[in-house]
Amino acid sequence: MPVNLKPPKNDELHSIPGIQLGIAEAEIRYKSQKDLLVISIDSGASVSGIFTKNKFTAAPIIVAKEHLKISKSTRALVVNTGSANAGTGGDGVKNARVVCEMVANELNINAVDILPFSTGIIMTHLPVDKISIGIPIAIKNLKPNNWLNAAESIMTTDTVAKASSKKIMIQGENVHVTGISKGSGMIEPNMATMLGFIGTNANITKEMLDEMIVEVADNTLNCITVDGDTSTNDSFIIIATKQSNHQPIDTKNKNYYVLKEALLETAKILAQSIIRDGEGATKFISINVHGGKNRDECLSIGKSIAHSPLVKTAFFASDPNLGRILAAIGNSPIELLDINLIDIFLNQVQFAKSGSLAENYKESMGVNEMKSEEITLDIYLGRGEYTSTVWTTDLSYDYVKINAEYRS
Amino acid sequence: MPVNLKPPKNDELHSIPGIQLGIAEAEIRYKSQKDLLVISIDSGASVSGIFTKNKFTAAPIIVAKEHLKISKSTRALVVNTGSANAGTGGDGVKNARVVCEMVANELNINAVDILPFSTGIIMTHLPVDKISIGIPIAIKNLKPNNWLNAAESIMTTDTVAKASSKKIMIQGENVHVTGISKGSGMIEPNMATMLGFIGTNANITKEMLDEMIVEVADNTLNCITVDGDTSTNDSFIIIATKQSNHQPIDTKNKNYYVLKEALLETAKILAQSIIRDGEGATKFISINVHGGKNRDECLSIGKSIAHSPLVKTAFFASDPNLGRILAAIGNSPIELLDINLIDIFLNQVQFAKSGSLAENYKESMGVNEMKSEEITLDIYLGRGEYTSTVWTTDLSYDYVKINAEYRS
Repeated sequence: MPVNLKPPKNDELHSIPGIQLGIAEAEIRYKSQKDLLVISIDSGASVSGIFTKNKFTAAPIIVAKEHLKISKSTRALVVNTGSANAGTGGDGVKNARVVCEMVANELNINAVDILPFSTGIIMTHLPVDKISIGIPIAIKNLKPNNWLNAAESIMTTDTVAKASSKKIMIQGENVHVTGISKGSGMIEPNMATMLGFIGTNANITKEMLDEMIVEVADNTLNCITVDGDTSTNDSFIIIATKQSNHQPIDTKNKNYYVLKEALLETAKILAQSIIRDGEGATKFISINVHGGKNRDECLSIGKSIAHSPLVKTAFFASDPNLGRILAAIGNSPIELLDINLIDIFLNQVQFAKSGSLAENYKESMGVNEMKSEEITLDIYLGRGEYTSTVWTTDLSYDYVKINAEYRS
Repeated sequence: MPVNLKPPKNDELHSIPGIQLGIAEAEIRYKSQKDLLVISIDSGASVSGIFTKNKFTAAPIIVAKEHLKISKSTRALVVNTGSANAGTGGDGVKNARVVCEMVANELNINAVDILPFSTGIIMTHLPVDKISIGIPIAIKNLKPNNWLNAAESIMTTDTVAKASSKKIMIQGENVHVTGISKGSGMIEPNMATMLGFIGTNANITKEMLDEMIVEVADNTLNCITVDGDTSTNDSFIIIATKQSNHQPIDTKNKNYYVLKEALLETAKILAQSIIRDGEGATKFISINVHGGKNRDECLSIGKSIAHSPLVKTAFFASDPNLGRILAAIGNSPIELLDINLIDIFLNQVQFAKSGSLAENYKESMGVNEMKSEEITLDIYLGRGEYTSTVWTTDLSYDYVKINAEYRS
């Protein structure tokens, strides 16, 4: 059961002029399940992408990075579930290229203008024959108002499709932003999430979009963690079709920040949706670390807490065993951390002051706060001006169940 | 249910001339449970200790380190369960000192010659009144052949007492080595384990023992991890009473290595016992990483695998979802790791060759190997001459259960 997360409605997801989406049931791993997605993009769009830092980069990521570098205009994305095509060596790369060629033939475009993505089991070869049957079907049903189907077609252990959409105005022109994401386990994106795709008709240069995507990811998709396992296939792509009639965004002017804000909000909802649907999640936990010397050390402490199995099981049990949070902070790799300066609040309740048990704190106060489904930890380090946030889940029986049974 | 671990028998644990142990039921957290241990040591022993690197160092550790530094001859250890006396600020340190003074008064020795240890809930104050009643009782029953009682008195979530003992000869003289340990969760010792105490009557200088203890810990207690949560209270102490009649070990001569080997074997059994009794463990997993440029990078990859919840749940399910091991290796922080050189064996079965699926590997082979309770992973990096080993457990429903219910 996801934490306070409802499935999106298709009519709330604004179409993006210049983008069409088509899906197929290609039986890659299961029968009667949407498992293949093609996104076609009109010529002339700016497309930016960032990818996993896992050293076992999946084959499709290798090809997508290469194509993104040499293509003059990315014209399509192709995404399959069921096989991650990772740990598959040279054959895996060959297969990812074959899939691009299939899409290129059907759409009459070049293979280098296509970005391939895969998600599913690692160390299984891509069933190219099944995908070859699915691609024409997906292309046949390409249409603009198809974002919900697209979100559903990229789910693996996700229990709810993830999408977000908004309308903004730039210079009196309508600009739409719509995105989808997937992910539930193996989630600690490093420069990207499992899979996240956002489309907009904003008119922005590729150079500006390349800068913007990093800022957007760093404050949204890179702030989440379910289990600390950075995937081999994480990818985050923003497509700007430039079909809105405002002036091109080619410097960091006001319009840049208006668009960035809309992308941030969209990506934040996509990122939080992944956590709300985290494997076995029963709690949505925001960890704000304040007063660091830089953003990285705040993030590092946030992740140290978010990755502690002991902290996560205490949240699952609604047990205010808050010393586990102290121990997790103590395990973060920060140099010269003065624990005697640290204050910690659980929602509004201060339980640690100057590095030890706060005098007025009573167990019953912690018990109350731990019961809520939405929990915020505020940690004050008292050593600088920076703040960072991590969103995470608890660790429940169901996390173990889902991951012990994923392949069976 | 621990993995292939039987409770020790008291008559298999050799007494150490110069060491006596006494226990009490002080009702620190539960009634009718051994929860307080005093170890008294004859004058003139060499005592070395290493302690947690967690920045939230518990109060007793602060005091023990200080005493170890200034004492001319450590004469006693006092250990309580039920409260870790960590995250307790200045009051915590004061309480640890009070406990030392109580023991000092009873034994008519100096408080600085006593090392205090605590294990249990973090951020609870030590119940000094209860401990004050327990100490005279523990001291009253001090005796040499009391190691099993001692091992039982330091258990928390442990299901089996942990002890190991052996006899060696140095220059024709009998040397006994006996140790006890505790720990089951919050286990990734960093320079020490949760609690480990080894006694020997070997005659070795403090300087030599200080060197030896680091080598022993690095190859035993620092190689284990249950959940990656380094405790605030980890401590490992070796007491050498010097009552054996061989010549003093004051250089790294042959006798140094004979004694070191015995301590290594004892500490290895204590360390592995903690893993075999790891919270919820159903598998005992050895991860050997070979061919690294140094020991640290091998250890880092071993830990990256051992800490991955996805790898651990796959082991629990006996599911050869081996791509998760690749992903975990890819997440280790090693610079310039060439994944195309990596070979991996599950027990005797090679499943990855040159960084991708081995050609002859079949799923059925992995299924067979994953069923055994004792599993060995051998990973060959092909970039150097170093090897390191990590011992760990799987992640089961019971791990979540134990940690979600620990305080209730």
